Amino acid sequence: MAIDFDKAAERLRNWGRWGEDDQRGTINHVGPEALKRAAAEVVSGKLISLGLEFSQDGPQIPEITKRPNPQLLASDLDQIFNPANPRSRFNDDVIVMPLQSATQWDALSHVHYDGEMYNGCKASECLTARGTKKNGVHHLGSPGIMSRGVLLDIARLHGVDELPADHKISPDELNRACEKFGVTVEAGDIVVVRTGHLRTFTVRKDKTKVAGFQAGLGAECAEWLYDKSAAAVAADNIAVEFLGMESLTQEVVLPFHMLAIRDMGMPLGELFDLEALSQDCAADGRYSFLLSAPPLKVTGAFGSPINPIVLK
Amino acid sequence: MAIDFDKAAERLRNWGRWGEDDQRGTINHVGPEALKRAAAEVVSGKLISLGLEFSQDGPQIPEITKRPNPQLLASDLDQIFNPANPRSRFNDDVIVMPLQSATQWDALSHVHYDGEMYNGCKASECLTARGTKKNGVHHLGSPGIMSRGVLLDIARLHGVDELPADHKISPDELNRACEKFGVTVEAGDIVVVRTGHLRTFTVRKDKTKVAGFQAGLGAECAEWLYDKSAAAVAADNIAVEFLGMESLTQEVVLPFHMLAIRDMGMPLGELFDLEALSQDCAADGRYSFLLSAPPLKVTGAFGSPINPIVLK
Amino acid sequence: MAIDFDKAAERLRNWGRWGEDDQRGTINHVGPEALKRAAAEVVSGKLISLGLEFSQDGPQIPEITKRPNPQLLASDLDQIFNPANPRSRFNDDVIVMPLQSATQWDALSHVHYDGEMYNGCKASECLTARGTKKNGVHHLGSPGIMSRGVLLDIARLHGVDELPADHKISPDELNRACEKFGVTVEAGDIVVVRTGHLRTFTVRKDKTKVAGFQAGLGAECAEWLYDKSAAAVAADNIAVEFLGMESLTQEVVLPFHMLAIRDMGMPLGELFDLEALSQDCAADGRYSFLLSAPPLKVTGAFGSPINPIVLK
Amino acid sequence: MAIDFDKAAERLRNWGRWGEDDQRGTINHVGPEALKRAAAEVVSGKLISLGLEFSQDGPQIPEITKRPNPQLLASDLDQIFNPANPRSRFNDDVIVMPLQSATQWDALSHVHYDGEMYNGCKASECLTARGTKKNGVHHLGSPGIMSRGVLLDIARLHGVDELPADHKISPDELNRACEKFGVTVEAGDIVVVRTGHLRTFTVRKDKTKVAGFQAGLGAECAEWLYDKSAAAVAADNIAVEFLGMESLTQEVVLPFHMLAIRDMGMPLGELFDLEALSQDCAADGRYSFLLSAPPLKVTGAFGSPINPIVLK
Repeated sequence: MAIDFDKAAERLRNWGRWGEDDQRGTINHVGPEALKRAAAEVVSGKLISLGLEFSQDGPQIPEITKRPNPQLLASDLDQIFNPANPRSRFNDDVIVMPLQSATQWDALSHVHYDGEMYNGCKASECLTARGTKKNGVHHLGSPGIMSRGVLLDIARLHGVDELPADHKISPDELNRACEKFGVTVEAGDIVVVRTGHLRTFTVRKDKTKVAGFQAGLGAECAEWLYDKSAAAVAADNIAVEFLGMESLTQEVVLPFHMLAIRDMGMPLGELFDLEALSQDCAADGRYSFLLSAPPLKVTGAFGSPINPIVLK
Repeated sequence: MAIDFDKAAERLRNWGRWGEDDQRGTINHVGPEALKRAAAEVVSGKLISLGLEFSQDGPQIPEITKRPNPQLLASDLDQIFNPANPRSRFNDDVIVMPLQSATQWDALSHVHYDGEMYNGCKASECLTARGTKKNGVHHLGSPGIMSRGVLLDIARLHGVDELPADHKISPDELNRACEKFGVTVEAGDIVVVRTGHLRTFTVRKDKTKVAGFQAGLGAECAEWLYDKSAAAVAADNIAVEFLGMESLTQEVVLPFHMLAIRDMGMPLGELFDLEALSQDCAADGRYSFLLSAPPLKVTGAFGSPINPIVLK
Repeated sequence: MAIDFDKAAERLRNWGRWGEDDQRGTINHVGPEALKRAAAEVVSGKLISLGLEFSQDGPQIPEITKRPNPQLLASDLDQIFNPANPRSRFNDDVIVMPLQSATQWDALSHVHYDGEMYNGCKASECLTARGTKKNGVHHLGSPGIMSRGVLLDIARLHGVDELPADHKISPDELNRACEKFGVTVEAGDIVVVRTGHLRTFTVRKDKTKVAGFQAGLGAECAEWLYDKSAAAVAADNIAVEFLGMESLTQEVVLPFHMLAIRDMGMPLGELFDLEALSQDCAADGRYSFLLSAPPLKVTGAFGSPINPIVLK
Repeated sequence: MAIDFDKAAERLRNWGRWGEDDQRGTINHVGPEALKRAAAEVVSGKLISLGLEFSQDGPQIPEITKRPNPQLLASDLDQIFNPANPRSRFNDDVIVMPLQSATQWDALSHVHYDGEMYNGCKASECLTARGTKKNGVHHLGSPGIMSRGVLLDIARLHGVDELPADHKISPDELNRACEKFGVTVEAGDIVVVRTGHLRTFTVRKDKTKVAGFQAGLGAECAEWLYDKSAAAVAADNIAVEFLGMESLTQEVVLPFHMLAIRDMGMPLGELFDLEALSQDCAADGRYSFLLSAPPLKVTGAFGSPINPIVLK
């Protein structure tokens, strides 16, 4: 790979930085100042959702991704509370869903390499059929993920709706996007990267490409995020990172995932729908905002479905 | 019941107020001004989660509530991406959960009476085994639920940790709480009511009482919330409203639910964990804050699990 | 349709025949004599399974059939019973599956028309989000489905591997099959009809046609089964009955289903894999056998997954 | 423990006996002769189910057993096939269930010790979050489990309804039962042992004891079953084997499970309801019969729910 993976990994490794027992990683960068800065971004009072719907018509193709789309089933329908007074009725439901099925945070337990997860816990000691004993997503949910968000609209930087599938985003492009869109990434910010890829699902209605090779961040971008002390990174693609043949065949498969999640302890936000946000930012020229995306506190989970919302 | 239900229902009914096709109800009260007011509340940059964990050890007792606790199962564990390069591994999971199992929003389709749901849609035409065709929780998730939150700490008003089970909260108490805690509920605010009831689960670890008779809002409080143009109401109990024998035996069972959800179109937030927030508000004397609790956009669902977060 | 549906329905209707509370329908035809006759068929001691596997690779295409394939997940893996003595380990699992996903019995509650199910129970009073109050599959499971089976190999009758999709099997063909294969259907027998259709899945590995138009029994065959006092009917296709455009557009959609299940109270066995049985019967010239296919006693279910086995 | 576990294990180990790739273990003892003998037992034509119902009211207490009871949910209710012809309707459902929740077979992958499963496959290479690569229950389902069954009614032998919880059944008692009830266990037979324990659930309706200490087979009985060349063993308790403090604290926890499943390759049938069968056998004096209990072919599963049926 372009970068020397193991050397980069050593430099970026945040293990012990926030204590031996830390399970929140770079979310620790979000302190009171970052949160106040986030609130200070609110000018127009406009609210935008970045979340996909969770439904049988979601972006998964089980034969390809091994993940079924969410299945919602009623458990009570038009149910009478009290037969003696049948006017009042209620409805309840149950969902069966992969936590990675649509818009989501990857928890710090989602990936690992060389047998160790973030902060040095042994995969063999943590992983169970009922979830992980360490780095479960509930730690990211306490108190939750909120901060200033910054949109780096790489598709717009290049004047296209969607980056081509073989486009690997470089740190230099991130810098150029900051410059063009007039933003500076500060400690504790959540970096939101737009590739346009999700339009294959939301606009072009072609699910076959959602999980294929696609544009995204190159491994070097992990260093950029580290140097900026970013709290998290999210994108409108399936893995945040660039997916090409090399991603799956190099010595460390999915190197950006490994550096970000396992070494830095940085949650990745995937399948964020950034179309409305992109248009809004282009319209008002403001690419920073308050971003709220609290994961569900699912005990021991490897990720969480979310509905991220932006307040500008 | 103390109030004339049908007369109150007629007065509070918001059907058509936001259009014939509206499926968001009182969330429509949240406009740019309310959101800017919410952001303006941020002073200390302190973040607090109000969400319970979702786990097998959750607050449900299936024999009593008919709802199992969430079940998390790994679908991939220590899985190698590419056998030729086995350093990188990943973990995925699946959850089976009632959407009403822990901290959650009731969608506008969660309850109804006389065969009609919020905004006049016929239950018989909307309800299916795969969810509802109208008033699904995904409408509340677009763009999501965020606003200024106001804590009315009724337990603290009375100087107790937990209100007794037979305590039905009156509008007068809500007014006294506003006065005592120095807050004024404005249009679009989310009213958060603390009874102390959830301490039976979070502090006293006694699940047997979570779903029993308990303190909560009396039906008249729906009128109060209507008159304040509140956007939503949440509490640290199982149904927001007071639960006593009368709740289940009067002509319209669960009258507050029916007035709020079905007539007003107001989402109810249940099983919010308010202990940390209560202590923080008491410490700094500030009972209003930015509250972010975006429901998952589960298409057609009767509710959504959430992790509500407060930024002060 | 070729037959006068309502007239046929009236003649075939078994309501009340086995009591007002009966929920087992034509399975009542299986008495001690039929069971002894079944056992008497055993000559070679050969056992053959007619069941498909239940797996993610099953015959469903959720986008078409609205049914996901079964999902199996471990709930305990390599789990130590007692940490002090870690030699012994165990593994447990959980399945999420549509009861109609592969080889299965349709219960008497699976279909209905004009608002009534088998034996006159009102659909509106029986159907709930948690299953049916009447005619649940557990009644067919008590004591279970076993009898003499008779293979009517219609594909072999015509000298083909698979009947063409537009082949609607007639009573006359059933008679000719009996004659050719030397069997007489007697009261209490389970009639097993082979069309060859399932080869699209088991042999040709083309799932796209499993749920499409396909060969099967015409509605008149319900009369034939009634007159024979058959206990049940099964086939190697998705609905036992012929599926063509007319099946879905005539006044009573799926007329064979309606006559058999709702009027006669006859369970339908679907997606039986009959290839090995067909070859074995052709080899030894014996087309009758003991057939055991006990449904799981899933309380209130509309069907049951099964592994039907034949002993010859 | 009373027996020298490792010495017994070595003697009973059937690895390689039926080939290096065998995944069916002692079910291989069931050949044509055993099956013909089973059919020859049929005299009265009486059918008896030994299966429990699968429902929310099943025998599991999740807090104790970590297994939820089965949850059945409708996926289609009163659903119209074709809106233009709305007379015909259908109902479909989905189940979420532990495969070990009620009456079931343990597959040969259900337990193991010293890192190896039946026939020497390494647990670490076979076990995945989506099931096992070897010894999955689908192998037992091909062609299925049917044979002559023999009831050894140990409770009746002692003249009690239920054996006391501290009663560990010895090989000598099995011999005495054979003698008293006039049966001889032959190669390929399925041995069915009655303790009366399940009456705590089926008769006394006290679920709290279903999973507690209870009567069952001592480890030495594995040797007895081996010497008889039994095909399988089933009982009306939760683990077939005796459960006392020693079961969980000795060096090899659950020694009977380990000898039978892991070394011999013998499936265990658990939570069989033997009350009706016991009464019937006592009434007609015939303790042998045809037993059909085909497991569902769930690919890679550690067990299968079943509805075992007896034909006498």
